[in-house]
Amino acid sequence: MTDPKSLFAALFEPQRIALIGASGDERKTTSRPQRFLRKHGFTGEILPVNPARGEILGEKAWRDLDSIPGEIDHAYILLNGRDAIAALAACGKRGVKVASILAGGFADAGAAGASLQDDLSRIVAETGIRLVGPNSIGTVSTDPPMALTANAAFAVDRLRSGRWAVVSQSGSLIGALLSRADARGIGFSRLISVGNEVDLAVGEIAGLLVDDPHTDAILLFMETLRDADRLAQAARRAHAAGKPVIAYKLGRSDIGQELAKSHTGAIAGSDATFDAFCRRNGIARVSMFESLIDVPALLVNRPPIDHSGALGKRVAVATTTGGGAAMVVDSMAMAGLEISDPPQALVDWLKPLGIAAGEGKLVDLTLAGAKPEIVAGTIERLLADDANDAVIFVVGSSAQFNPELAVEPLLRFAKTGKPFAVALTPSAEKSLQMLTAAGVPAFRHPESCAEAMAVCLLRTPPGPLPEFIVPSRAALDALAAGCASGFDERRAADLFGALGVPMAKALVVPDARRIAAAVTEIGGPVALKILSADIAHKTEAGGVALGLADGQTAAVAAREIEKRVKAHAPNAKLEGFLVQKMERGLAEVILGFRRDPLVGPTITVGLGGVLAEIYKDAATRLAPVDAAEAEAMIGEVKGLATIRGYRNMPPGDVAALARTIAAFSQLAHEKFAAVAEAEINPLLVKSAGDGVVAVDGLVILKNPRRI
Amino acid sequence: MTDPKSLFAALFEPQRIALIGASGDERKTTSRPQRFLRKHGFTGEILPVNPARGEILGEKAWRDLDSIPGEIDHAYILLNGRDAIAALAACGKRGVKVASILAGGFADAGAAGASLQDDLSRIVAETGIRLVGPNSIGTVSTDPPMALTANAAFAVDRLRSGRWAVVSQSGSLIGALLSRADARGIGFSRLISVGNEVDLAVGEIAGLLVDDPHTDAILLFMETLRDADRLAQAARRAHAAGKPVIAYKLGRSDIGQELAKSHTGAIAGSDATFDAFCRRNGIARVSMFESLIDVPALLVNRPPIDHSGALGKRVAVATTTGGGAAMVVDSMAMAGLEISDPPQALVDWLKPLGIAAGEGKLVDLTLAGAKPEIVAGTIERLLADDANDAVIFVVGSSAQFNPELAVEPLLRFAKTGKPFAVALTPSAEKSLQMLTAAGVPAFRHPESCAEAMAVCLLRTPPGPLPEFIVPSRAALDALAAGCASGFDERRAADLFGALGVPMAKALVVPDARRIAAAVTEIGGPVALKILSADIAHKTEAGGVALGLADGQTAAVAAREIEKRVKAHAPNAKLEGFLVQKMERGLAEVILGFRRDPLVGPTITVGLGGVLAEIYKDAATRLAPVDAAEAEAMIGEVKGLATIRGYRNMPPGDVAALARTIAAFSQLAHEKFAAVAEAEINPLLVKSAGDGVVAVDGLVILKNPRRI
Repeated sequence: MTDPKSLFAALFEPQRIALIGASGDERKTTSRPQRFLRKHGFTGEILPVNPARGEILGEKAWRDLDSIPGEIDHAYILLNGRDAIAALAACGKRGVKVASILAGGFADAGAAGASLQDDLSRIVAETGIRLVGPNSIGTVSTDPPMALTANAAFAVDRLRSGRWAVVSQSGSLIGALLSRADARGIGFSRLISVGNEVDLAVGEIAGLLVDDPHTDAILLFMETLRDADRLAQAARRAHAAGKPVIAYKLGRSDIGQELAKSHTGAIAGSDATFDAFCRRNGIARVSMFESLIDVPALLVNRPPIDHSGALGKRVAVATTTGGGAAMVVDSMAMAGLEISDPPQALVDWLKPLGIAAGEGKLVDLTLAGAKPEIVAGTIERLLADDANDAVIFVVGSSAQFNPELAVEPLLRFAKTGKPFAVALTPSAEKSLQMLTAAGVPAFRHPESCAEAMAVCLLRTPPGPLPEFIVPSRAALDALAAGCASGFDERRAADLFGALGVPMAKALVVPDARRIAAAVTEIGGPVALKILSADIAHKTEAGGVALGLADGQTAAVAAREIEKRVKAHAPNAKLEGFLVQKMERGLAEVILGFRRDPLVGPTITVGLGGVLAEIYKDAATRLAPVDAAEAEAMIGEVKGLATIRGYRNMPPGDVAALARTIAAFSQLAHEKFAAVAEAEINPLLVKSAGDGVVAVDGLVILKNPRRI
Repeated sequence: MTDPKSLFAALFEPQRIALIGASGDERKTTSRPQRFLRKHGFTGEILPVNPARGEILGEKAWRDLDSIPGEIDHAYILLNGRDAIAALAACGKRGVKVASILAGGFADAGAAGASLQDDLSRIVAETGIRLVGPNSIGTVSTDPPMALTANAAFAVDRLRSGRWAVVSQSGSLIGALLSRADARGIGFSRLISVGNEVDLAVGEIAGLLVDDPHTDAILLFMETLRDADRLAQAARRAHAAGKPVIAYKLGRSDIGQELAKSHTGAIAGSDATFDAFCRRNGIARVSMFESLIDVPALLVNRPPIDHSGALGKRVAVATTTGGGAAMVVDSMAMAGLEISDPPQALVDWLKPLGIAAGEGKLVDLTLAGAKPEIVAGTIERLLADDANDAVIFVVGSSAQFNPELAVEPLLRFAKTGKPFAVALTPSAEKSLQMLTAAGVPAFRHPESCAEAMAVCLLRTPPGPLPEFIVPSRAALDALAAGCASGFDERRAADLFGALGVPMAKALVVPDARRIAAAVTEIGGPVALKILSADIAHKTEAGGVALGLADGQTAAVAAREIEKRVKAHAPNAKLEGFLVQKMERGLAEVILGFRRDPLVGPTITVGLGGVLAEIYKDAATRLAPVDAAEAEAMIGEVKGLATIRGYRNMPPGDVAALARTIAAFSQLAHEKFAAVAEAEINPLLVKSAGDGVVAVDGLVILKNPRRI
């Protein structure tokens, strides 16, 4: 079933639900879906299936699926292993619209489980049934209520409804989010545990939620990413619909990635790559778990800002507690935000009240005794000021002792055009709840307030869809040549050159005798490199000589190279020499092209040389990129400050570098699918106006020619 | 009064308290100290002083201080400006042991206020009275109770007692800490707001608390640092007494520093320097506000670990929620901790229970249904394992629904030799409180759990006290010469050489004619530099020529230099040329010596060159350092990986570099107090065994010779 509307209805608003393997024993997990459906007021039909029982928890039980008359919207399979597979097959045959499987023990449990999971995939493909899981702890809607879940967290007495939806690859963290949000007075519209995502995955479900009139924001808890294209599409549609998509993803650290892998049986991409994916598609990524519930209030109904320069990240701060506000400011500055000075209109207004607001960046109202009309008047004037992009008010102990008084003047700012948030310095649950209920984003911790404001202001709208350029004949020929005989440096250079990467002037000579003539043609000094698709590391094989001034020197060097290489790799097929003009630049750049297993083609720009490797100083984007995005990447590489006009250093040709990055990134075109990885190292950046030139390059094919 | 015992008693356990300027109007802040003292059960004598009233809030009021008979332990001055100054003078005259001043408007309020504050300092110096503040919101003890404070946060009905003390430079954040701790079931022994610290400052008060039998941990909220030496001493004594000192300090960001400065009227040191101070003295610095109350439980009665290699930072993690534990692990790895594999004994024990613990780093007990005996048995076996340094248990939704069941097996691990902590995935206040009450460190957020564990495991004991070496005659002579005639490069080289820094071989020649002979003596190639104490930037003045192969070339270059320099700086006094051997190394290092306004002499080691500046890659310590600490610094500079044995690069002479850093850091000796700053840039590091050599250096005097 692929019609999104009926899929959505079967998933989140089913009328008839079968519970296959339901139990009447309340101690058993398999009794929970039925109990929770009833407890939270499901008004549709519940159809427990259990061959051993005539009745379960007061409802008629059915012997098997086939004995149930009429359509079944959603079947929750509560059986394990082979029994679950058989039940899914029965559901498929019976025309059940959506099935969910509770049991784990599939791809999450090693090779044996993976083979069981293949059986599920086959049934889905053959019958067209849509599947949630396996390893799905359930799907929940709150309005109208439908708690189809085995998650103990839904034993709560009251299921709070709300307008944010949760899609989670971890079942247990749905419970954590539910309880944390509830403690803050926040409810959700839908909560779904997607499990191993054999069929329905995060992206497709997010896509359904974009069209859900009950949902204003989509919250993702992710351990991996299995349907990047669909999620990208959903995020773009969500942006167009004014619904923020907010993601927390495990695996920021190497150990965390390792763990996500062993925990889910999924492959892990690199964290920088997932960041690039979020950025390209306008997904707001958060780094603290609680931010998933802290951040949406600031983002709903507020599109991301298009940034230029410092614009878009200036926050004005007013407070009744200097120390508390200083913590918020410190945390925001660490998160990359700027603090704006109070506007003159506010300074003038506060002066007669004895408050000197112009002396620092903070507007400290402590001396004014935090009178409500002064607090409100201050916030109004800050919101009206064009010199900031957001406003934060930091409340001190009054929030604890006089919540009504402290919070009252803030409630009217629930629907401001500009982001407005409140940070509470003491523990002040009542104030927090009043603010949340009124729709004013409010924060417990200076650090979480800073993260939320940074996400709100620094997130970017989805970037333009990648523009693929039809590959030239020359580029396709170069690819074909490399695929046929292996990619040596010259063939890589042919391909890169055909893509539009300026390559160092070079000639191929078949043997040492013709070197001198080539040097004369190119002009010394030159570099000499052995050519052989069989030798991956030329330098280590003794196959390179640099800085050869003239033809005679080069000819001597060539014979020495030949001798060394033959000793090093007696069986390698030598195809001659590359005579290349020696080049110099202001900076060395490394360009990398890779196909990430999760998000697809990526391009990375970094500073060349060993220090860049040590500092891990690079910018990554989904490929291809255009020149404008490439220039943004250059701006992110700290070490490239040297060519962006640093102190009195001569600026490099940033424009040419950006064009070259864009050209190289076209390897993402499907015609180049044979290329698994490619690298230019180094690409030399010359003075502004003098361009760039690539000196060495490498292509790795998906299915390399065996040597 | 400087006897610590009686000072402590007057401050925290006074019997007779005068309230100067007390008010009977409950709406007024000045009525609070009297109300709060009574409310929280102060059993001593309260002596309100107010010339206009015979009785205040039911106590006899006194016309003035002199009319009160007998000794007064502590006077809280609730008057403003000049009245407060007069009251302090009266206290001093009257022999009051300690006075506190509530009012701000002193150094915290610009130049006019600073002059008022000078009056306070004078009275303290003249009368010997000890002063807390001005701008102190009060001093509180809980057992026996003594709430001498105007802080609205003490309007709470019950003041919880505890065994941690708070010393804060921000008054309002005492309230925030009080309420946040109380919500967690945590109380304090003492809380003191130190205000502008005219007399009693954080360090001296921390020193008193080291000897307080009611205090097990000392928590500092800092905006600046006014008595570094005393705090250092207190922290070392606290370490010896087994009491952790934990500090949160504003000013991690530049904006935050700016703010702390404008907020307190204090100068701000650099954040790296404060870090160095904490490290040297064994102070645990936290970066999240709530960590001030989250961290102590893990540190009390547990001395910091001496680290070597990976030892000391390996955490074992067991859980009943895979996803929740993965968040904790990810956060810990980001904080620099390692995760250890489960021990074989545990794997073997769990196997018959159907739990495969050996397959990942996490011990996931979810499948075991989290039975108490399995949870406890697992933790026992992890704690007994030598392959980890700490254990964390992450609890899922059972903590929310069955606190007793979930928490019960954890309570017995309150007093483990090894750090043990619990992280709660859902919102589970009851579990949190039960764990806290039992003394088991418990955390709400994966991020705060990770910060606390990182602080616990990665903090270091106080470093050895700096060892000063008696300066040599030669060094003092070089200093005297530089002070007399100004520090040109040669005189700086003389000083550094005398300290033990290997300097590049060089000769001074008075004029261009003698250059050739000098080159012959030194051996080419050489560098030629103009010598003049009047020229700070030799290169920009055209005063440098590099790589001169022989005497003749050098002589020509010298005449050109002379011409250029005379054109550039016609009035500069030229003192000849420095002919210096050209040196090469594997890496360029920059050494900086500075006197920080807060913590005193510091030494910084970084990679030389423009990239190091861009990456801000440097290590800072209090000076002097010995060779062992210098080697630890080298290990912290990422870019110096190239000389520590990186890939197949030749290792540099790290030992010689460490010796040289140590030698240079001896500029911290008081005999060199005239030196404000010094720099060696570059210091070239040669291959292992070949030493280091400094090529250029700079000395800046505190009171430089005017040109």
